[in-house]
Amino acid sequence: FHSKLNNVAVSIFTEMSMLANQHGAINLSQGFPEFDTPELLKSTVNEFIASGKNQYAPSIGTPELLAQVEQLIHRQYAMPLNPGQSVTITSGATEALWCAIQTLVTSGDEVIVFDPAYDSYEPAVALAGGRCIHIPMLAPDYKIDWQQVEEVITNKTKAIIINSPHNPTGTLLTEQDMQTVEKLVWENDLYLISDEVYEFITFDGRQHESVLRFPKLFERSLVVSSFGKTFHCTGWKLGYCTAPPELTDEFRKIHQYVTFASFTPAQLGIAKMLQQEPSHITELAGFYQSKRDCLVNALQDSRFKLLNSQGTYFLLVDYSEISQKSDRDFCHWLTKEKGVAAIPLSPFYENQTSDKIVRLCFAKNENTLLNAAEKLCQL
Amino acid sequence: FHSKLNNVAVSIFTEMSMLANQHGAINLSQGFPEFDTPELLKSTVNEFIASGKNQYAPSIGTPELLAQVEQLIHRQYAMPLNPGQSVTITSGATEALWCAIQTLVTSGDEVIVFDPAYDSYEPAVALAGGRCIHIPMLAPDYKIDWQQVEEVITNKTKAIIINSPHNPTGTLLTEQDMQTVEKLVWENDLYLISDEVYEFITFDGRQHESVLRFPKLFERSLVVSSFGKTFHCTGWKLGYCTAPPELTDEFRKIHQYVTFASFTPAQLGIAKMLQQEPSHITELAGFYQSKRDCLVNALQDSRFKLLNSQGTYFLLVDYSEISQKSDRDFCHWLTKEKGVAAIPLSPFYENQTSDKIVRLCFAKNENTLLNAAEKLCQL
Ligand SMILES: CSCCC(=O)C(=O)O
Ligand SMILES: CSCCC(=O)C(=O)O
Repeated sequence: FHSKLNNVAVSIFTEMSMLANQHGAINLSQGFPEFDTPELLKSTVNEFIASGKNQYAPSIGTPELLAQVEQLIHRQYAMPLNPGQSVTITSGATEALWCAIQTLVTSGDEVIVFDPAYDSYEPAVALAGGRCIHIPMLAPDYKIDWQQVEEVITNKTKAIIINSPHNPTGTLLTEQDMQTVEKLVWENDLYLISDEVYEFITFDGRQHESVLRFPKLFERSLVVSSFGKTFHCTGWKLGYCTAPPELTDEFRKIHQYVTFASFTPAQLGIAKMLQQEPSHITELAGFYQSKRDCLVNALQDSRFKLLNSQGTYFLLVDYSEISQKSDRDFCHWLTKEKGVAAIPLSPFYENQTSDKIVRLCFAKNENTLLNAAEKLCQL
Repeated sequence: FHSKLNNVAVSIFTEMSMLANQHGAINLSQGFPEFDTPELLKSTVNEFIASGKNQYAPSIGTPELLAQVEQLIHRQYAMPLNPGQSVTITSGATEALWCAIQTLVTSGDEVIVFDPAYDSYEPAVALAGGRCIHIPMLAPDYKIDWQQVEEVITNKTKAIIINSPHNPTGTLLTEQDMQTVEKLVWENDLYLISDEVYEFITFDGRQHESVLRFPKLFERSLVVSSFGKTFHCTGWKLGYCTAPPELTDEFRKIHQYVTFASFTPAQLGIAKMLQQEPSHITELAGFYQSKRDCLVNALQDSRFKLLNSQGTYFLLVDYSEISQKSDRDFCHWLTKEKGVAAIPLSPFYENQTSDKIVRLCFAKNENTLLNAAEKLCQL
């Protein structure tokens, strides 16, 4: 049997979470909240299950949820969408990314991605018959060098994948970045996939520059969002893709054969939540900023150098004063010997190497963050 | 923008369910139960949601559910599996089929399918770079002509997709069919994808000849199952794939980038259900047989010719004495004018034509079946 993904292993998130569990370490590796999804959302989903909303949803999503998402996008980004033809509900942002890539990429296509890059982009592009062209972003700012992007564009280039707020670095693209990408995309007849799953988690008053603020750019884009990150329910695997009608049309054709539809009662519950408790979203950035600040403060006296987290629920820390191990070895050692699990950055790079920097997830209770920090301060 | 699926439209299930809703017709088209998932299962899932099991499950599935499925397979088919290396939980059988096809099919590969064929096989194979070779099965028995299969095998043939109990025809493969396919697969170095989502719904004492009863065949197979069909919760989108370790390994790599994981609380709930109420499964065939018999009896005096349903929750009926319309036109007419929605068979055929036969779903309350039959008897 010949594998199509020879150099792919179990994902780094699975690897580190398993190791954390094995060793009873505080798990700041895989990105998921320690706190629960809101009571209103849980009880609403429970009611829909109890009252028998347990059969197939429409493949594109329930009408209730689609309508609420359209309104959310209008509220948040003032983007007027073609109603009913722009949003598709998916089984998590991972499925949305997979289908977006399948929508665009055919055999021989090249797709530009920026390292450190989320681990699903490369295999999804490869399985669609394409090839990723990796452009590194460099610590500590992780800015995109658009000059370099222009240089690698060929007549095979089909799409660019951006991700802001950025996992794992926590950086944000600026308005100027977005104007540049709009220009590049139109001048070179490209498409854009924009992974915006942390869209509501930005800090220090910074605005998330969603593709949905740039109507011209949006015409050639598929935008990926996540309910799991927004409502603290990563285990429900619900996300969505927003795109203009022609791209949505193709996206939906593919989605109907990938998963067909997603968990009905949770779709109905999230629709109610969006309608009845919009404050959850407007308060999310503040909620996570206090988590970030808690961890940052608690690490002030450590020997880690802290990078700047502008968004997401991740913080990068440089351990070069503490250890000369590779980042993967450091993370294994930290988990097994010191009781704190983190994510190495090398799996996010084409050449699988990185600086001496690891990622900490601060979607945890203050207690957990302080306990972890105490251990980290002893290094 | 160039579509990769030019001759694919919205699925026939979506089309007919929408039409049924628009016209207030009794919906015997898309296959989903009218009755609800068992109380124990609903309340258990609700407890897991309430108690906060709302974050990512392991990508391969929760340990509790994997263990229960392994036991179920052992109980049902006496197949000894490599524990922990054979079963992967997916976001519905559709995702399992998609990932199984991605596991096997690479550019230029040919895959043998039997028409009428479930609508996701062809686009999934095409998007993996392969091509389906269609072999027709003929009314009223819809037997596979294995001679013809042997004749179309080339050095490009990678896999065969079988489906038993068969949607839409309700036929079962026999032990002899399975022995023949085992021989063909081994002699020609092929793989098998076996779609067994209706595995627990067989009638008149017939045994489902699962690949999981044939150890040698299983060595080259991926077997797809569905919790939605078994527990009346099609809207929960949970299924699984059972395969030998090497194929499971590749399947899991792909699955982790397609959806990563599936709805956690429902996985935990189904595990409890499998453990605490195994009778649900053993009683399922009888439960559905009485539905089938109810519909069959109620249609005795109609001008439809009834075909034999040996399994699934579908019954084929021949309307050639009633109308000369094409099957799609007949289904539209039946829905709009007569208030009963059915599924035409032509979308399941490569050439999009079929005999004057349509599919009725009998996963409905007796009342609904009798009301529908009353309308159908008037034709
Ligand atoms: C899908 S598991 C990974 C969760 C996540 O997005 C992360 O940890 O970066
Ligand atoms: C995934 S919607 C189709 C349901 C079904 O399997 C059928 O109606 O055949």
